[in-house]
Amino acid sequence: MKHPPLLSAALLLTCFAAPAPSRASAPALAPTEIVAAAPAADWAAIAPSDLLVMDLAPDARGTARRVVIQLLPAPFSQGWIGNIRALAAAKWWDGTAVNRVQDGYVVQWGDPDGEDKAKAKPLPAGLTKVDAANYAASSSQVRPLVADAIAHEALGTPHPNTPVYVKDAYADTTLFWKGWPIGTDGEKMWPLHCYAAVGVGRDYPPDTGSGAELYTVIGQAPRQLDRNIAVVGRVIEGMENLSSLPRGTGDIGFYKTAEERTPILSIRIGSDVPGLPRYEYLSAESESFARYADARANRRDAFYIRPAGGVDICNVPVPVRRVQ
Amino acid sequence: MKHPPLLSAALLLTCFAAPAPSRASAPALAPTEIVAAAPAADWAAIAPSDLLVMDLAPDARGTARRVVIQLLPAPFSQGWIGNIRALAAAKWWDGTAVNRVQDGYVVQWGDPDGEDKAKAKPLPAGLTKVDAANYAASSSQVRPLVADAIAHEALGTPHPNTPVYVKDAYADTTLFWKGWPIGTDGEKMWPLHCYAAVGVGRDYPPDTGSGAELYTVIGQAPRQLDRNIAVVGRVIEGMENLSSLPRGTGDIGFYKTAEERTPILSIRIGSDVPGLPRYEYLSAESESFARYADARANRRDAFYIRPAGGVDICNVPVPVRRVQ
Repeated sequence: MKHPPLLSAALLLTCFAAPAPSRASAPALAPTEIVAAAPAADWAAIAPSDLLVMDLAPDARGTARRVVIQLLPAPFSQGWIGNIRALAAAKWWDGTAVNRVQDGYVVQWGDPDGEDKAKAKPLPAGLTKVDAANYAASSSQVRPLVADAIAHEALGTPHPNTPVYVKDAYADTTLFWKGWPIGTDGEKMWPLHCYAAVGVGRDYPPDTGSGAELYTVIGQAPRQLDRNIAVVGRVIEGMENLSSLPRGTGDIGFYKTAEERTPILSIRIGSDVPGLPRYEYLSAESESFARYADARANRRDAFYIRPAGGVDICNVPVPVRRVQ
Repeated sequence: MKHPPLLSAALLLTCFAAPAPSRASAPALAPTEIVAAAPAADWAAIAPSDLLVMDLAPDARGTARRVVIQLLPAPFSQGWIGNIRALAAAKWWDGTAVNRVQDGYVVQWGDPDGEDKAKAKPLPAGLTKVDAANYAASSSQVRPLVADAIAHEALGTPHPNTPVYVKDAYADTTLFWKGWPIGTDGEKMWPLHCYAAVGVGRDYPPDTGSGAELYTVIGQAPRQLDRNIAVVGRVIEGMENLSSLPRGTGDIGFYKTAEERTPILSIRIGSDVPGLPRYEYLSAESESFARYADARANRRDAFYIRPAGGVDICNVPVPVRRVQ
């Protein structure tokens, strides 16, 4: 028998880096297998109006390069996201470029002349200046959820579908909420700088960035940026079109010459892109997600000899798929 | 005054994700500035015989592509590393290739026909078959160090130059030892799968790999692989020559065609490479390293408004430089 029966609730212990349960007699499902077997009801639609679609110039072989970004829901970063919607509507990014690729850190795009006030491309009127207080939101909506999950953990009966992760170097508690990895300290909650997260470049404080300058994470999660800079979304398709770009050889990965930059043809909100596929994410409240998260923390499939007994939340990427 | 006085010992608290100390009146040094200011005595030489030098075929513009790997010291993974030395001495890798690039995960190289027993390149005689028990080593050498560091932490007087990190999702304790990030559970210690770590590809257990098939980490640290596979070193120069390669479109990132592979011209031990620069790493026992590690955990330089109060050990890459 290749696949064992469904995992029992006792295997859902994903936090506290607890000792791994003993292995079943047959190898368990790998995370990708759990995701492939998830029923349709466990998938949640992503509204096209919550997508940002970036088309880069074709590569050297003429292959199109598209990057699809999912924007964060309220209450996170909505001031910047409003600006991003306005910039896309104004077609402001068309003709800008990817200007910086720093290995193991970030890829950044926007106006190549943005640093030079005399040459910078004017921003559309009406953008909001957002306060740094908005790097985090009130955690009142997740507080009962976290308390309940932690109470379950304390009793040794993990909450069936809210895995929480407390062995995190940066936040008291991390968890998934509405399909996003977030951190919380009891008072506030904030989105995390995991691989493929998209954030808003800014100047020195008190500047918080307009949203015209964006970046994505291409290495180890730079969680020191949490609450120091606005996270606005994550790349859900085409990440390789950014992560495999040549690294810049200038300071902090900026390209030294204009020729090295990758031109941006357009950036649009998904509902304005004809023929865009529909996307879904695996609901973080579903049983499938709980089993997937558990399997990421305790690999029991055939390749592994020792389940880790814990996982960094950034090593539990939320599965996203095109609707068939 | 741009630079504040030296950080006091009280600022060295890098574990437990403690509340961040209040900010000094002037911005503190950034980690890169601390490294740049480290005295010569804080740097340790890397023996050329502990380097593995991989020359890839030049890129499309004819630019040479070299990757320099530092091999782990005893007691870690020496069986596999002995095999790697034998494979390099036999020039076994010359004419092999980079065959797999999986976004956010690994780049892998070796014999493109390695999976096909009929076509696989024969390995040199005399390689050692290493047991899985060697994925970890006895922690007796670090036990007093860890106990001392944790005792200091408990008293609120952090050990001056052994930062330990206990808020880790995968290991009881993580720390730097002989310049390497390691995990320990009190009985064993093992090297970690951080960004740029180099490991030994293998088949399903009980296979442990010979060392002929190698990979490096190009995304979020896949720490679930710790103690499931042998780590043998880390890339210290030329990482971008692997991390920016086009992603493979086959299963788990393998290239579908031979043309997509990047040919390997040669892999040699550093002492056999004429004209190789000398390299040094910032000693993890030095005061400079402690200050650097603290600054990675608590960014107080001008760009940041909120020090994190903690850090994942994989976000404290050990600084390496060419000797001037």
